[in-house]
Amino acid sequence: MTKTVAVLNAMARPLLEPRLPDWIEPRWFTSREELAAAAPAAEIGWFDTHHLGPIDEIVRSARHLKWLNTLGAGVELFPLDLLRERSVAFTNGAGLNAITIAEYALLGMLTIAKGYRDVVRAQDRHEWLHDAPGKGELYGSKALIVGAGGIGRRVAELLAPFGVAVTTMRRTPGPDDLGPDQWRARLGEFDWVIVAVAATEETRGMIGAAEFAAMKPGAAILNFARGFVIDTDALLETLRDGRLGAAFLDVTDPEPLPADHPLWSFDQVHISMHLSGRSQETLIVRAVDRFLANLDRYAKGEPLSHQVDLALGY
Amino acid sequence: MTKTVAVLNAMARPLLEPRLPDWIEPRWFTSREELAAAAPAAEIGWFDTHHLGPIDEIVRSARHLKWLNTLGAGVELFPLDLLRERSVAFTNGAGLNAITIAEYALLGMLTIAKGYRDVVRAQDRHEWLHDAPGKGELYGSKALIVGAGGIGRRVAELLAPFGVAVTTMRRTPGPDDLGPDQWRARLGEFDWVIVAVAATEETRGMIGAAEFAAMKPGAAILNFARGFVIDTDALLETLRDGRLGAAFLDVTDPEPLPADHPLWSFDQVHISMHLSGRSQETLIVRAVDRFLANLDRYAKGEPLSHQVDLALGY
Repeated sequence: MTKTVAVLNAMARPLLEPRLPDWIEPRWFTSREELAAAAPAAEIGWFDTHHLGPIDEIVRSARHLKWLNTLGAGVELFPLDLLRERSVAFTNGAGLNAITIAEYALLGMLTIAKGYRDVVRAQDRHEWLHDAPGKGELYGSKALIVGAGGIGRRVAELLAPFGVAVTTMRRTPGPDDLGPDQWRARLGEFDWVIVAVAATEETRGMIGAAEFAAMKPGAAILNFARGFVIDTDALLETLRDGRLGAAFLDVTDPEPLPADHPLWSFDQVHISMHLSGRSQETLIVRAVDRFLANLDRYAKGEPLSHQVDLALGY
Repeated sequence: MTKTVAVLNAMARPLLEPRLPDWIEPRWFTSREELAAAAPAAEIGWFDTHHLGPIDEIVRSARHLKWLNTLGAGVELFPLDLLRERSVAFTNGAGLNAITIAEYALLGMLTIAKGYRDVVRAQDRHEWLHDAPGKGELYGSKALIVGAGGIGRRVAELLAPFGVAVTTMRRTPGPDDLGPDQWRARLGEFDWVIVAVAATEETRGMIGAAEFAAMKPGAAILNFARGFVIDTDALLETLRDGRLGAAFLDVTDPEPLPADHPLWSFDQVHISMHLSGRSQETLIVRAVDRFLANLDRYAKGEPLSHQVDLALGY
């Protein structure tokens, strides 16, 4: 029996190899060059490379590809049109990171509320502060979650016992969500605006001058989506005005942020360097479990789970 | 009709004065000296002073005192024997701070898990980190709450949706709690040990060399009780051994911590300078509400709520 060639990143090998079914012929790659060499033979591909960057050419060369998998949730670096044209099934890691990113979102809110960075800096100086640098409580505050997908819903779950009144916005709203045409009019109500939308052309710059102007003075915005969802120039303008209480940016535009970028220096700005999803050791474990479950479906000719909608881009 | 003299800290005046019943004659103090002068006439006293310190002599001079109130939860600075001898009712602020301190406990756990201080320091250097300094998740971890009073129970509530398995220890255990003779044998099971016991002679040094030795290597301890509940020498010894993953100390012994104290300098030690309860603006509001409700009970001759057990000391 001819085996099915799967071209797989070697980072998953220790977890994946012992559990691969025998109809798979794995070809492991450890570099972008090895991936480029192996890709043309792949029917199944898990092409994530350590260094982010477009992989259009590699995907284009993979003429036998029927199924492409990625660890991440954001797929803006993949050639979606090409995959659609070739009818390649594309599965992603949507939701795998939600647990750990949502924990980071709570950390962000709490560190803002308590002015915790000043406590860290005081300890570094061996200085005992006699009053709290931040006196906010989550209790009794109001939060808007813009994009209630896996991450946003998890943030809402974590916030529930804190006594935070949570409102959610979804592109396709359920009965309890605001829709894309409703949330802007309500922006002035919230102490926290937590951005967790998918990274698509539709969400590019969705938080700009008008949205900042509509926010409650002193409110905080947190971004766990992609940097380009917030218009950086509009953010800088709002920061200079002093109207924004805080911006917790796990993601920025550009990324990495150059050392001389003005965002670094604002007291109100917290930059966490796209680390929220990396602050765990379990993503690969969860991703391998999902990949193996999908291999089983693939063998049976069943639809794969967590497929990216190649038209919507998430 | 003779009015009842109440000697009250002027910090509560803006909130309290408009709502005082007319049978009260308030005497406001703004300093320890004014308090000392006013105390002998007090039947009711709210004697908290801005600077902590024993107030034995002031209480001793208050020969007409029938009810003493304090904002805080810990009462170790008050002359409990004297109050008992004179049958003075003593009410405290137990639980008033629970909401805000529990938020700080979650902040402590999250900042430890994600290595967040290194993110703060990197931002201060304008440096984009490419990997996360901490890769812990709360999800799937196990926590022991030592002292499940108002704060401890609130921490347990907040942790529930995080997927943390929480075990509680109480002096008077309910069906779901470990008792004072049971928790030590279980210490090796937990990733987090969160200390929130009352400050009494019984809890002094309750976490010492034996308890640190019994903890799981790499586990974290968080103290929101009083510094003296942890034996500082034993803590330093454990830190030098490298067995302890982290110590988040909202309270220390001594306090304030002198600038040359060795605790400041350990990478594993997080010091938050007894700020957890101060990181809010609502304590006084809640305390005034409770005091007024008790004034009403006092007028009717009913038992006051939140009385300190003068024998147990909490």
